[in-house]
Amino acid sequence: MAEKMKRTEIKSLLSGEQTGKEVIVKGWVRTKRGSKNVSFIALNDGSCIHNIQLVVENANFNEELLEKISSGSCLSAKGKLVESQGSGQKVEIEVSELEVLGEANPEKYPLQPKKHSLEFLREIAHLRFRTNTFGAVNRIRHAMIFAIHDYFNSRGFYNIHTPIITGSDAEGAGETFKVSNFDFHNIPKMEDGEIDFKKDFFGKEANLTVSGQLEAELAAMALGKVYTFGPTFRAENSNTTRHLAEFWMIEPEVAFADLDENMDLGEDLLKHLIQYALKNCKDDLDFLNKRLEDEEKVKKKEDRSPMGLIERLQFIAENNFERVTYTEAIDILRNSKPNKKKKFNYIIEGWGADLQSEHERYLVEKHFNKPVILYDYPKDIKAFYMRQNEDGKTVRAMDILFPGIGEIVGGSQREERLEFLEKRMQEMNVPAEELWWYLDLRKFGTAPHSGFGLGFERLMLFVTGMGNIRDVIPFPRTPKSAEF
Amino acid sequence: MAEKMKRTEIKSLLSGEQTGKEVIVKGWVRTKRGSKNVSFIALNDGSCIHNIQLVVENANFNEELLEKISSGSCLSAKGKLVESQGSGQKVEIEVSELEVLGEANPEKYPLQPKKHSLEFLREIAHLRFRTNTFGAVNRIRHAMIFAIHDYFNSRGFYNIHTPIITGSDAEGAGETFKVSNFDFHNIPKMEDGEIDFKKDFFGKEANLTVSGQLEAELAAMALGKVYTFGPTFRAENSNTTRHLAEFWMIEPEVAFADLDENMDLGEDLLKHLIQYALKNCKDDLDFLNKRLEDEEKVKKKEDRSPMGLIERLQFIAENNFERVTYTEAIDILRNSKPNKKKKFNYIIEGWGADLQSEHERYLVEKHFNKPVILYDYPKDIKAFYMRQNEDGKTVRAMDILFPGIGEIVGGSQREERLEFLEKRMQEMNVPAEELWWYLDLRKFGTAPHSGFGLGFERLMLFVTGMGNIRDVIPFPRTPKSAEF
Repeated sequence: MAEKMKRTEIKSLLSGEQTGKEVIVKGWVRTKRGSKNVSFIALNDGSCIHNIQLVVENANFNEELLEKISSGSCLSAKGKLVESQGSGQKVEIEVSELEVLGEANPEKYPLQPKKHSLEFLREIAHLRFRTNTFGAVNRIRHAMIFAIHDYFNSRGFYNIHTPIITGSDAEGAGETFKVSNFDFHNIPKMEDGEIDFKKDFFGKEANLTVSGQLEAELAAMALGKVYTFGPTFRAENSNTTRHLAEFWMIEPEVAFADLDENMDLGEDLLKHLIQYALKNCKDDLDFLNKRLEDEEKVKKKEDRSPMGLIERLQFIAENNFERVTYTEAIDILRNSKPNKKKKFNYIIEGWGADLQSEHERYLVEKHFNKPVILYDYPKDIKAFYMRQNEDGKTVRAMDILFPGIGEIVGGSQREERLEFLEKRMQEMNVPAEELWWYLDLRKFGTAPHSGFGLGFERLMLFVTGMGNIRDVIPFPRTPKSAEF
Repeated sequence: MAEKMKRTEIKSLLSGEQTGKEVIVKGWVRTKRGSKNVSFIALNDGSCIHNIQLVVENANFNEELLEKISSGSCLSAKGKLVESQGSGQKVEIEVSELEVLGEANPEKYPLQPKKHSLEFLREIAHLRFRTNTFGAVNRIRHAMIFAIHDYFNSRGFYNIHTPIITGSDAEGAGETFKVSNFDFHNIPKMEDGEIDFKKDFFGKEANLTVSGQLEAELAAMALGKVYTFGPTFRAENSNTTRHLAEFWMIEPEVAFADLDENMDLGEDLLKHLIQYALKNCKDDLDFLNKRLEDEEKVKKKEDRSPMGLIERLQFIAENNFERVTYTEAIDILRNSKPNKKKKFNYIIEGWGADLQSEHERYLVEKHFNKPVILYDYPKDIKAFYMRQNEDGKTVRAMDILFPGIGEIVGGSQREERLEFLEKRMQEMNVPAEELWWYLDLRKFGTAPHSGFGLGFERLMLFVTGMGNIRDVIPFPRTPKSAEF
């Protein structure tokens, strides 16, 4: 084999520009079929969802070599790229040299060319990248990661790495994981029996972050426009299709922005990302579109989604989101059929109720039939740091609700007035001494500012049409599960 | 004030295109000086290192308002952007409307316009973003983050989010942090006295990741070319200017790549990033260049760096890295002056010695006077997963060494042969049962592949010329410190 002739990626081969040339391709066998004389091998190298067909004249190769080729084995093949005789592909390779880099014993290789359940594939998450579905999902995941950085970079935002390990769990966004290097056989205690965290690595109790927002605010109040994109954690025992113990969040924070500008940014970002996917991930989306179609077919007619995946993405990208106050939403819900007929599990009695997923979905999927931005929520169901409205009852919060997903973005204008913030912290038992630095921001050069959190895996669910959040992150962490 | 007239960022104002127009600017006061009649206010909004000068005719404004303006206070100012009369700036704003968004009591605001020590600024990391130095560092940090994603994206790599919480500490790269939601007052134990990790959140012992490499390999062997960019952790009690408990790493992993291609990728990536900084961060680098120059002046002549910051960056971007085998390096070191004169703390006696920082720096800064890639290290000082050479003594490892920094990249070709890997794991007591999935990769469609880890904060030290790693990450985590 030519000493330093480089492999060409399948994505590039399929573009057709190298037809007629001698090429080297390397990848993993998806299927092998053929006759006594010819073998047809579908090879995939991950550069795109499509395979390249290798055409192997059996007589030209050692029988033993050919027997080593099966689904999952890894090949290096050299040959001429030619227009394909058969249907189903534009080009194929007439193989002249063939090497098996790694076999995959068909008796033992778990990924045979047949339909596997998503549950089974989760158990072999180390291999599921090699399926069409997870190849597509992970290529789209990358595209969304890049599009997010590109969106913010081109608009003058700075990415800030907020800390993963934090000394304060002051936000109260949920149960946190402890981080420690204590010997669990021998946890040091003080005389009064309390844990002696001074002896732990950080000299104090430490947790995994639930959000980078508070630290992002610090950066925004100096650099202007910032965003985080990092892992966040919840130690909640939720075994659902929507929850992970470890998930990624994007949190922009903008100095001088009010809630309207915050809503504008959230809507624009989501539309941009979906447009980016439609433009840059066409082949993978086509595959997932078909996959979802097949999945819907087995459902009862009334449970089927009214739109296909791609149609749904286009719909979001092209239509304005409906902006509705919480108060208006409560009116709509109170007068809705499912509320009057007591079809909701939680009946909306009046103002102040926390909205459940069923209510959000009613608003988005039945009433407005498009994404909805709810804003100006009652202060009692929202976090301490949100800016109070003059009515004394509501805060400048906003949630963006998506069909099938529910809340995909949650944000607010932040309370920039020291006296309001301090009062609210006291009322909600948020320890001021732990958040001295957050309060400092209101003492020294405070200004209006706003931001939100976008759950990256929620976005991925929407963009890929997958139904379980464990299938849109490579290695999901959930209760009783941290394999790989 | 015009209802929805938007603020213009200072970076854009200074480009000069809006001269003669009415603008709104918002930002934080760096300094205020002037006479009885006129005040000159230097305002910064983080969009760039430069301030815009506000010219305020005192007679036009309420005295009380003007008194509220001091270093650190936050202003919104409207006025005409005009060519500057004074020296030091091209344009300035003749202010017609002025609002103090937030005061900063000069008696209490810690960031007065004078030189503060880096140690002091670390204690107020929530405010240090507002200094020239940390503004510059964090803007460059963002630029490097973006450049990394852009580099890999445009070359067909996929970003993979490898898990932060892992159930195995098999890599043995150092001490790990435990992640738990046990009640520390009441750790559940089994009958034999061992900790009952089945009762912990993940049903097993869980740690913070020390590297995403092993999981990145899983993705590379399906998607072809991948990279990670995420936080990694070491629970080591190292209080040095080079160590953090939480730091960010970039780990590309490439299927079918050998060690040569791995070295090519590492060198190309580093040069690209440095070129990107030189091109896109000019103003911030000019400032840091000057800063370093001033810092060097107080040093003794022999301790001064032979090159300035920008000169050094240009030198790296333009010169090839020297590639030297470990064996050659040992010969050079053994015959070196400091070794013969016993100036090294660790005298190099012969082959097999682990290189210390002093040796790496001798090679880079004295002998070759450029970045050095050392490769083919003795297997006994390297990790179990590195590919063994035919000599039975060395492995296909490579480290890239930078002046002033030492190791900035560490990588290897991975052992793709099952029997070699299993033998080495046994010899090094790496538990095969925990890494069943890593071994599966060698059983099913194995192939040569390579990758490396680039320490992001080490890169940041080099690009910014800062001397302490705690100053190139927004909120450093170190022994006994997890504030903010």
